[in-house]
Amino acid sequence: MFSRLFAPKVKVSAHCDLPCGVYDPAQARIEAESVKAVQEKYQANEDPDFRTRAIIIKEQRAELAKHHISVLWSDYFKPPHFEKYPELHQLINDALKAGSAAKASNDPKTGEKLLELIARIDTIFWETKKA
Amino acid sequence: MFSRLFAPKVKVSAHCDLPCGVYDPAQARIEAESVKAVQEKYQANEDPDFRTRAIIIKEQRAELAKHHISVLWSDYFKPPHFEKYPELHQLINDALKAGSAAKASNDPKTGEKLLELIARIDTIFWETKKA
Amino acid sequence: MFSRLFAPKVKVSAHCDLPCGVYDPAQARIEAESVKAVQEKYQANEDPDFRTRAIIIKEQRAELAKHHISVLWSDYFKPPHFEKYPELHQLINDALKAGSAAKASNDPKTGEKLLELIARIDTIFWETKKA
Amino acid sequence: MFSRLFAPKVKVSAHCDLPCGVYDPAQARIEAESVKAVQEKYQANEDPDFRTRAIIIKEQRAELAKHHISVLWSDYFKPPHFEKYPELHQLINDALKAGSAAKASNDPKTGEKLLELIARIDTIFWETKKA
Amino acid sequence: MFSRLFAPKVKVSAHCDLPCGVYDPAQARIEAESVKAVQEKYQANEDPDFRTRAIIIKEQRAELAKHHISVLWSDYFKPPHFEKYPELHQLINDALKAGSAAKASNDPKTGEKLLELIARIDTIFWETKKA
Amino acid sequence: MFSRLFAPKVKVSAHCDLPCGVYDPAQARIEAESVKAVQEKYQANEDPDFRTRAIIIKEQRAELAKHHISVLWSDYFKPPHFEKYPELHQLINDALKAGSAAKASNDPKTGEKLLELIARIDTIFWETKKA
Repeated sequence: MFSRLFAPKVKVSAHCDLPCGVYDPAQARIEAESVKAVQEKYQANEDPDFRTRAIIIKEQRAELAKHHISVLWSDYFKPPHFEKYPELHQLINDALKAGSAAKASNDPKTGEKLLELIARIDTIFWETKKA
Repeated sequence: MFSRLFAPKVKVSAHCDLPCGVYDPAQARIEAESVKAVQEKYQANEDPDFRTRAIIIKEQRAELAKHHISVLWSDYFKPPHFEKYPELHQLINDALKAGSAAKASNDPKTGEKLLELIARIDTIFWETKKA
Repeated sequence: MFSRLFAPKVKVSAHCDLPCGVYDPAQARIEAESVKAVQEKYQANEDPDFRTRAIIIKEQRAELAKHHISVLWSDYFKPPHFEKYPELHQLINDALKAGSAAKASNDPKTGEKLLELIARIDTIFWETKKA
Repeated sequence: MFSRLFAPKVKVSAHCDLPCGVYDPAQARIEAESVKAVQEKYQANEDPDFRTRAIIIKEQRAELAKHHISVLWSDYFKPPHFEKYPELHQLINDALKAGSAAKASNDPKTGEKLLELIARIDTIFWETKKA
Repeated sequence: MFSRLFAPKVKVSAHCDLPCGVYDPAQARIEAESVKAVQEKYQANEDPDFRTRAIIIKEQRAELAKHHISVLWSDYFKPPHFEKYPELHQLINDALKAGSAAKASNDPKTGEKLLELIARIDTIFWETKKA
Repeated sequence: MFSRLFAPKVKVSAHCDLPCGVYDPAQARIEAESVKAVQEKYQANEDPDFRTRAIIIKEQRAELAKHHISVLWSDYFKPPHFEKYPELHQLINDALKAGSAAKASNDPKTGEKLLELIARIDTIFWETKKA
């Protein structure tokens, strides 16, 4: 139990490769806020060309949100984190699938769902930073 | 037990969104073969400019391998798969970290490790396709 | 005649530059399968927003298919191949134009045409590998 | 004087086009922090291949920092902002040139300079948001 | 006055970093011509799928036009240019905003406006080259 | 003979798809000028980090030159052009391979070779435009 609490910091440093120093879930959050904002603008404007652009832009923003979430999982989070937060794998997978769902829908609730899952990843992220 | 065997097929179809029809771990494998081939060429050529290009190209190929692996996890694999293969989350995370390790090294063994992990994902992938 | 059959292997090796070790027409084929699958989903769904996404995604997949075909022509195939397969230039140009045509159409026949031309390139590709 | 203080809010809303709802200088800052962190790792590691990777990654991160700064200037800031902050054009141009300078150098001071200029843009950005 | 005329050349050379040797506003102009041409084709074709593709492609071309304009401002133009052409900052910002406006509209006049502003940047660019 | 001379114009118009209105070999030429300029700067500067950046940037510029050449072949040139200029396929393939060669070398002669082949494509391009 005692070693578990200390292990993370040591191992994380040990596994740290060149680009891993700077991570911030804000990158995923900002793109997801964009997804939700675009969905709201889609709902408020019935011009078909405006809506086409909304869908194009939402596709790109959701893809970037998914990319930033993916990077946290593959590059920042390490085995000790997965041990301490056994729900982390599924949480991140759910967030990525919420990104896909927000691409496929123009309902701001799907963007909101994506933001909520990113917020939960963000909470764990900052806990591991303090650890 | 009986329902578990049938459930996946049904649920997977039900969750299927627009771009999900065509997936193939060969995409990740081909990029990873490129990573390993570049590492072997790096070892066989001491010209510093050749080696700089090898590192640039390996960085790109490993990034693409990671992207293709990530897409399988976020877009193709669904909850029923994770239930049937509880090791899948960690296996895919290990493969992504092997991609990072192959970026940071010019030892063909790191490219080989990445290929082995992709091969294990590939086995599961085709089992789920037959299911 | 005899020297022609042997020439390719020698010359191809001689011209081989850093990233040329790993090529596989499967990369183009997988993207083209995606193009055709998206066209089929477009036909089966009349929701205008779904169709907008189908066109966006098809545009990207067809562009990737064209890119992978182009790389085979510019980076893998060498003068001895063009000598042995005089139809190769035109076949590859036809495949690229089939990629453009599949962007401009939602008829799965255009995706099918692209796949057929990639299959013919694939046949020649593997013949040159065995040579 | 009175009308100047009110004009911005009105005009800014009026000019707002589809993707303009969500902007945050944090996007540029996070990439710039990465630039500086990579420069520090470069200084602490004499392995030539590590340094090659550091330069590759710094090039990409600095390019992204420049892109995010550029988007603020072209898409977020509007004529009323330029009227209220006459130094804004030059400040942003300086920040972009600091991004180029940080690409060309491995001295963490150049990354620090980039961060300082982004911090000044950030201050103005949030003032305009409160206005 | 005399020193002002000589200063630019000297300072520009002094600030010149690695990629700065080759710039040409033709890059922005060609993309902007594409924007306008796509808008004209949009107007001439009422098929909704054709129009969706037109909007997708125009979005990409306008983004590239904006990128090339941005590079001229951040990488080519230097303080002495801004001193000699005090209108340059605003002219370039107007051109970038014209790029955004051409994304949001299918009226060829918006593409024409973008082209006019690029033409004015082009005039200044070539004057500075002769200086 | 008579019909051959007229056929091209008609067929080219008939095959014209959405993005084909604006093409210009200047796009490839500008990137190739950058390739050659970077090679010259590489030769003039022995700092290893400067040279690493030169190789990174040259790789990107040569890739863009290859892309623009490829687009001319796949999207602009049509069967009547290939009939009129039977050397066109091989000329363009040579230009693409010259792009690869310029990636693999820091000798400005390889950049010059790329520029010469683009100039020959440019000559044919403008002849077909006048036709």
